[in-house]
Amino acid sequence: MTLKVARRAAVPPFEVMNILDRVAELRAAGRDVISLCAGEPSGGAPADVEQLAARAHTARSDMGYTSALGLRSLRQEVAGHYRRWYGLDVAAEEVAITTGSSGAFVLAFLAAFDAGDRVALARPGYPAYRNILHALGCEVVEIDCGPDVGFQPTPEVLDDVVARTGAVDGLVVASPANPTGTMIGRDQLVALTSWAGANRVRLVSDEIYHGITYPPAGAPDPRGVSAWELDRTGIVISSFSKYWGMTGWRLGWALMPADLAPAFDALAGNVALCPPAPAQVAGLGAFTDDAYAEADARVAGFAGTRAVLLGELDRLGWGPVAPADGAFYLYADLARNLDGFEGSPHWCAELLEREGVAVVPGTDFDAVHGSRFVRLSFAAGRENVAEAVERIVRFQAR
Amino acid sequence: MTLKVARRAAVPPFEVMNILDRVAELRAAGRDVISLCAGEPSGGAPADVEQLAARAHTARSDMGYTSALGLRSLRQEVAGHYRRWYGLDVAAEEVAITTGSSGAFVLAFLAAFDAGDRVALARPGYPAYRNILHALGCEVVEIDCGPDVGFQPTPEVLDDVVARTGAVDGLVVASPANPTGTMIGRDQLVALTSWAGANRVRLVSDEIYHGITYPPAGAPDPRGVSAWELDRTGIVISSFSKYWGMTGWRLGWALMPADLAPAFDALAGNVALCPPAPAQVAGLGAFTDDAYAEADARVAGFAGTRAVLLGELDRLGWGPVAPADGAFYLYADLARNLDGFEGSPHWCAELLEREGVAVVPGTDFDAVHGSRFVRLSFAAGRENVAEAVERIVRFQAR
Repeated sequence: MTLKVARRAAVPPFEVMNILDRVAELRAAGRDVISLCAGEPSGGAPADVEQLAARAHTARSDMGYTSALGLRSLRQEVAGHYRRWYGLDVAAEEVAITTGSSGAFVLAFLAAFDAGDRVALARPGYPAYRNILHALGCEVVEIDCGPDVGFQPTPEVLDDVVARTGAVDGLVVASPANPTGTMIGRDQLVALTSWAGANRVRLVSDEIYHGITYPPAGAPDPRGVSAWELDRTGIVISSFSKYWGMTGWRLGWALMPADLAPAFDALAGNVALCPPAPAQVAGLGAFTDDAYAEADARVAGFAGTRAVLLGELDRLGWGPVAPADGAFYLYADLARNLDGFEGSPHWCAELLEREGVAVVPGTDFDAVHGSRFVRLSFAAGRENVAEAVERIVRFQAR
Repeated sequence: MTLKVARRAAVPPFEVMNILDRVAELRAAGRDVISLCAGEPSGGAPADVEQLAARAHTARSDMGYTSALGLRSLRQEVAGHYRRWYGLDVAAEEVAITTGSSGAFVLAFLAAFDAGDRVALARPGYPAYRNILHALGCEVVEIDCGPDVGFQPTPEVLDDVVARTGAVDGLVVASPANPTGTMIGRDQLVALTSWAGANRVRLVSDEIYHGITYPPAGAPDPRGVSAWELDRTGIVISSFSKYWGMTGWRLGWALMPADLAPAFDALAGNVALCPPAPAQVAGLGAFTDDAYAEADARVAGFAGTRAVLLGELDRLGWGPVAPADGAFYLYADLARNLDGFEGSPHWCAELLEREGVAVVPGTDFDAVHGSRFVRLSFAAGRENVAEAVERIVRFQAR
């Protein structure tokens, strides 16, 4: 007997999974492989977080269900974080603690959009946005955003899309973005929130890479601009994963517009019950001065590695490169270096086989133009990145 | 400007939330309140689990992303659990570690059912099944299951529903069930899986209360019968939450039929990234002999409390009571004790105000007949339950 498999479960495979499998095989065979694939910083959670966790488990503290939207004390700390970084008054009641930003996206999309609703997002972009939206029955409206617009949507491009294809119900933006690292400045964000307001579009602002930024000294908005600095009709999504290095803990949050808060609460209880209690208890340690200092030191390390990488762009001889103002990715147009390859997936596979360097082809982020691009993560550290550059230069010289 | 809130986010409110709020208020005002509301055992995780957690956090072990379907070592341990309890060979590859059983239900429903598909389940039942299915656009087909059929679906009832309303694509069963504690015996489960096979219906078997069971000495299938003992086309869902007392940790699993495994993998990476890594690392400690012994001792405690409660049924003077063969709930028809009340929600509210005993009205589990019923959790312990019975008897005597 055969049973049906849901059509909505048909999610395109990620090339990076094949690459990671091959990295494991090569390493098992004794090859020296440098992986610049990872979407996560190394080094783990701040000491204060780990200490709280160790203490709670040693004391066998209560780890029962929390409220669906999380511990009151943690919601309060997140609210305080908005005062600290953005000078913004956020109430604990406006914060939903979630099971990573993934959990926040599922709740946000369920709360704000029905099946059939049209949600716009930039291409290239983080593939889970479109895959979750697709699984939830929403129509994904991909907006071609090239290097000329910093890979970010603009009101002009959005107007054009609406004129050609019809109104949209939602807009997902990400700053700093994955895979490009580009950011949406204050003026741009004002333009986008105004556009959203005028078009009755719900904005979903992914701010998980806030704080991992490389502003010149004295620049305004050094951590990034939060959508809630401009208005509170949109949903802000953030996470402990990137800035605090807590990827596996699955702890994130959303700022909920007042009209969506009841839906968030009801949906969270049903879909997730509550975010992981041990992570919530430990997450309280992320907001100490020491924890911020620890995270900032890691960001300073990324900045150094980024400088090394940007300094090598001439030798690498690639096409236009996204400015990588934040996050820890460089998204590069391979341009003439693709001669003789079928596209970046093939280029990446060959680079891995010949030189033992793993990077992610752009096709995982952009099904249309991605075969010209690669994403390098510089979270792997300065030495790894410097050595990887040497190997790539050698590979391209063949 | 007003933006839309998704229609699918309209989840019926749970009466229990109001009750829990009122419990907190009364306790804050100094009242002595006994809550028999909780769907979680007290006492927390086994010592071996807490010890692994404390050790990992003290050593600041890597807590980065794991594979989307979880740590290989934990999948292996879960596979071993099926050999230990059911004598069943399950491969680690067939196990998906999930973010609680909640995460497993979301993945299962997305993988197996498209929007518009019809999924049958028993009424009364755990409300999150129908709320998740509704949010995902599936049509929920509630099957009236009264005390005459142990609150469980039978092929006859299912045939009748199909004849009246059309074919169904899925069937969710739970044994032991929430809120009734009733179980599906081997013969019944054979009948249900045969029916599912003959009707090309995907079975989803919720087995999260397995092991919390009260069989007579020497009875067959003392832990419950797993659907995978009969065939592997259905999805089995289970959890660390109940038997091991790890509710807040958000760790569960699914056994994946071969045809759904790729969909589970792809969806999990997008919807959840991975289950919480700290919980996974610690969860390895749930499968030691000591951890099983600790969990079994807690179940023995439930058994004692259950005996106290069942021994008081005459004094309580309620109508037919579900047999409570498993889990830690008694689902009771208040029958003639409802005279003078508008229904069990009103009865529960009055009981709480007058006697300081909190129980959950059946309306949270059954929108049609639930206003006659209440659910008592006996996870609160023998003394609390004994005192609660005295208060309820006094309340009913007024």
